[in-house]
Amino acid sequence: MVKALIFDVFGTCVDWRTAIAAEVARVLPTVDPVAFADAWRGEYQPAMERIRDGNRGYIALDDLHLENLHRVAKRFGVIAPDDLNTAWERLTPWADVGKGLAQLKQSHIIAPCSNGSIALMTRLGKFAGLPWDCILGADLAQDYKPKPAVYVAGCTALRLDPSDVMMVAAHNDDLHAAQNAGLATAFVARPTEHGPEQTGDLAPTGTWDHVAGDFIDLARQLS
Amino acid sequence: MVKALIFDVFGTCVDWRTAIAAEVARVLPTVDPVAFADAWRGEYQPAMERIRDGNRGYIALDDLHLENLHRVAKRFGVIAPDDLNTAWERLTPWADVGKGLAQLKQSHIIAPCSNGSIALMTRLGKFAGLPWDCILGADLAQDYKPKPAVYVAGCTALRLDPSDVMMVAAHNDDLHAAQNAGLATAFVARPTEHGPEQTGDLAPTGTWDHVAGDFIDLARQLS
Repeated sequence: MVKALIFDVFGTCVDWRTAIAAEVARVLPTVDPVAFADAWRGEYQPAMERIRDGNRGYIALDDLHLENLHRVAKRFGVIAPDDLNTAWERLTPWADVGKGLAQLKQSHIIAPCSNGSIALMTRLGKFAGLPWDCILGADLAQDYKPKPAVYVAGCTALRLDPSDVMMVAAHNDDLHAAQNAGLATAFVARPTEHGPEQTGDLAPTGTWDHVAGDFIDLARQLS
Repeated sequence: MVKALIFDVFGTCVDWRTAIAAEVARVLPTVDPVAFADAWRGEYQPAMERIRDGNRGYIALDDLHLENLHRVAKRFGVIAPDDLNTAWERLTPWADVGKGLAQLKQSHIIAPCSNGSIALMTRLGKFAGLPWDCILGADLAQDYKPKPAVYVAGCTALRLDPSDVMMVAAHNDDLHAAQNAGLATAFVARPTEHGPEQTGDLAPTGTWDHVAGDFIDLARQLS
């Protein structure tokens, strides 16, 4: 029985694509909003990769998102206002998340273990009603998932052994990394994170401790 | 109008003395429980002082509490079990705190800025029903209040200017330090933190932005 559940957030807890596209449509009416959202998110891994590789010091995701916004806007031939970047603080939770987290919180410490900063996760948590007990993630490790330091820093902050902590994610690569760091794992598929044509992460690709249909199902499995 | 409220916890949000004495009475029935609680808390500042002075590297308060427990137990002629230390995770909030924090949370980010670790504040928050948006404090700065780094690290984690953050405390020295670091300040007296004979911190000794009777009064003042 693990004592804490730590969660991936973008894609696992919230539908970033629909919310970002809606905000882009409002602020940049001349571009294809879904294409813009996908392009913006497409810069996410490359931007973190330079930091994970040690080619750049740690910079919070808020700042990477802003750099990426302007890079993508240029490609789309528009100028984006800086405050479009705050759209990442206002994403919509999947329908099961509020109820599921409330149930899981009754028996476990629950916290995000996201690549988002403490500031971003705090504001998103308030907006989306995610009842976190604390905020873990990239800021504590000053590095980005899937580097093991991020998972380990979360466990250390809670003064728990990794085997007492379960990583919950919709992304198999996140779970592989967490499992390699000694954590328990739970996979919850989010088959429309990338839209109706999504091909990746539709099913578990590893030996995870739990595979659940949604957070309410996970709460049932852990009760 | 500040955007975030950060709180001292021991004494300001929770009545540590009554809860610790009750636990001591249960576990160490031969000692005077209130005297033991006061002696244990009395080791708090000296233990942190060595770290603030740079004579010892940062060690989480959980570990200092445990060292202090055994030092005090020896003085009282008893042997204390290690797990008495977890009593600090089960302290009782003052009567106004739950309702007051819930009101303040509607309009502000709320977070502890305590010398307690993320682990300790997370567990205490769950036990006492403190609805924090995130956990700030000593762990982030790897140093102890009233060192300015602790207040500044909290603001930095929220990506806010210190002038957009208000420190709430029952201790004037905490507020003096926060004010010197550029934060707004609110004083809430807790006249029985140290028992019915308390002499210190009964009234504000500085020019604080707010002086409130309790957290519900503070919410009214800030609304």
